[in-house]
Formats: sequence, structure tokens, C-alpha cells
Amino acid sequence: MAEITRLGVIIFPGFALLDAAGPLQFFNQFSGRKPLELSILAKTLDPVSTIPPKNTAQHYPCSFVGQSMLPTHTFDKPPEQLDILIVPGGLGVVDETIRNETAAFIKAQYSKLKYLLSVCNGSIIVAETGLLDGKKATSNKSAWSSTSSYPNVNWVPKARWVVDGNIWSSSGVASGMDMTYAFISSVFSIELAKHIANVMEYEPHVDPDWDPFSDIWSVSSK
Amino acid sequence: MAEITRLGVIIFPGFALLDAAGPLQFFNQFSGRKPLELSILAKTLDPVSTIPPKNTAQHYPCSFVGQSMLPTHTFDKPPEQLDILIVPGGLGVVDETIRNETAAFIKAQYSKLKYLLSVCNGSIIVAETGLLDGKKATSNKSAWSSTSSYPNVNWVPKARWVVDGNIWSSSGVASGMDMTYAFISSVFSIELAKHIANVMEYEPHVDPDWDPFSDIWSVSSK
Repeated sequence: MAEITRLGVIIFPGFALLDAAGPLQFFNQFSGRKPLELSILAKTLDPVSTIPPKNTAQHYPCSFVGQSMLPTHTFDKPPEQLDILIVPGGLGVVDETIRNETAAFIKAQYSKLKYLLSVCNGSIIVAETGLLDGKKATSNKSAWSSTSSYPNVNWVPKARWVVDGNIWSSSGVASGMDMTYAFISSVFSIELAKHIANVMEYEPHVDPDWDPFSDIWSVSSK
Repeated sequence: MAEITRLGVIIFPGFALLDAAGPLQFFNQFSGRKPLELSILAKTLDPVSTIPPKNTAQHYPCSFVGQSMLPTHTFDKPPEQLDILIVPGGLGVVDETIRNETAAFIKAQYSKLKYLLSVCNGSIIVAETGLLDGKKATSNKSAWSSTSSYPNVNWVPKARWVVDGNIWSSSGVASGMDMTYAFISSVFSIELAKHIANVMEYEPHVDPDWDPFSDIWSVSSK
């Protein structure tokens, strides 16, 4: 990696807060040790809420509350270079417009990226780009059925995270933290990853095959 | 608890993202099942950045990156009633003005609260109010020395989280998720807490005495 690491994190309406905030907490602390530039990317510069779009929230008995994060860049005017791009998931992925707009941005960036990471059903957005065709990936286990729309992807039904080439994908929400720990260990250093995790008082799962949620959500191979 | 749960989460410059986002992810999902009102409280309605104030960041080799969350209410005009108030930590706690302003708000709210929860060195802010005098509490282990400024608190050096009366305190950053799991289990229902954790694909530590970080950071009892 270059002297400065240029990290981008995408957000969209109905993103799951922890999908973004878990990896971000690692990289916020990373930046106290190594030079990092962070961009928070969205369609516009307006605050982006985690509240699911209305067309997805109708399935739930209560209204979701949420909170808003501020983007720093738009999909139309991203930084010149991003080295690492993180794609969170959330109920917003169910919205076709959000999925398509986000996928278009990822597709436009991919050739310049060193690494593309997804958390939860962020991998559905990455699958939408076609970049996962013929590649291994995983996704969240409580909404596994959505993977069937992308039959050219080799979906791994029992995995905390999966690496194929320079594309990393994690299982649901909290698993993004384990993937980030493994990513920093692999790409930067184990010592740095351990230091960050110790400051965070986070005990990472370090086995990518650890996945009790595959059984809990009755996910079976295609 | 009443039919609707009214939750407040404080943010301040230099709050640690995951301190707030961990519990918030639980409560965002909670709100899909049970009525919840959420307020994000800060000194003003301006976006609040996780970037540490300059007077705290000088100790680090690199500049911290961060991201901004939007408040919904100010300390001066909070909602009429809050049932649960969550106080995150972060490097901002080191700033005396931030600590004092936040502590004053907590002190003014406490008599109306059903529960007061802190994450990480958010307990230092709670200690500043005097509300922890004679009570048990814990704090983050990598900055444990700051507890010595509050000798009237019975600081517990080895604990993932501590409960004393209606005040809950967790250890560093990620431990806020375990405390929140235990809190929802205890105050609402174990089934609800388990459902949320399973959707989050989060395996909580359920033993409040589990704390490897106490040894890692060489925290010893006073």
C-alpha cells in the first residue's frame, strides 16, 4: 500500500449503521497510527439516514428509528483515487434505485481500487455490478434468499467472511468488524490490527469459517 | 417500561463512533419490533464529528479521520421525557469543557430517567456528575488511569459491564454492544435481545465478568 491509504465508505438511505460504523471504528483508530484519507460517499451531500426507505419498512410492525451521517463526497464527484472501498448493507439495498445507483458507482471505481469490501447484503449491490460473477462471496444470513437473484456468483453459505482476489465480502452486520480485523491483519500488519482491537476491547473471530448464523437462519447451499 | 420507549443518545466532538453506533444498531432493530422514540442529543444541532478535539489529538503520530452524525435535539431543548439515556465515550471526554457541559445535561436529566447507560470512558462523564459516588462502575481499560480522578466511585477493574441501581456502565468501545444485549435481555426480553443479535450476526459476551482487556492493559485495583 502507498504511504497514504485512501479509504472510501459508501452510505445510502437505509444503510445499517453498524455495517459502516464497525469498519469505520477500526479505520478511525488506524488513522491515529498510519496516514489515512477518508471519504464518505453518497448520491448527494445531504445527510443520509439509516431509516429504511418506506417501500422496505412496510414489512415491520413498527417504524424504524434511525440516525443520519454526513457524506463528504458525491458519487458524481468522488476523490480522484480510492484505494479501498467499503460497501455496507441494510434494508436500503432492497430498493432497486438505491441498488442500481450504488452499483453504478462501484463499477465505475473498481478498476482503480486496490480492494473492494462489502458488509452484510452490501454484497448484493456488488453482485449487481457483475464484478462477482464467477467469484466466491458471502452475504448476510437472515436474508440469504436474495442471493438467488445472482446465480453467477459462487455464494458461500457458511462463512464469516470470504476473500476472492481483491474482493472481500462479510456476512451480516457485526461480521464486518471481523472482516476488517482480518483485512488490516492481512494488508497492513497483525500487530496493528491487534492494537486497534485491544483499544476497541473487541475480541475478533479470526476463523473465516466460523458462522453459527448459517445454521440459525437455516441457510443451505444452492 | 411504558408502551413507547424514549431513548436518548448523547454525542459530542470526539465521541467514539462505535460507542454510540453499537447500542444504536441494537435499538434501531428494536424499533422494528417495539415502539421507540430516538433522540440524538448534542450541544447544538450542528453535525458532530468523531474527530478528537485538537487538544487531545496531539498525543498521536497521525491525524485522526472521522465522520459526522446529526443531532436531533440540543442539551437546551431536549425532549420532555427520556426513559433511557446513553453516554458514549471517546477522546472528546478528555476535553474539560465537553466533559462539563455533557455532565451538566446528564445531571439535569437523571431524576426523570429510568436508566442511565455509559459506554467506554462515557463513565468518566457520568462520574463527573457525582451520580456514581458510592456506586460501582467500570470504564475503558486502555485509559483506566483517568478513573483515579473520581475516588468516590467504586471502579471495577475487571468487568465487561457493571450495573448499580439504574446506572449501567460498560468497558471500552465494543463492550457497549454486550452491555446493550444484557440491558435489552434484562429490561425487555431475552427473546427480543436474541432476535436482534441474530439479525446482527453478533455473538454477545453474556458474562459481565468476562474481561481479557483488564489484563491486556494491566489494570489493577486501586
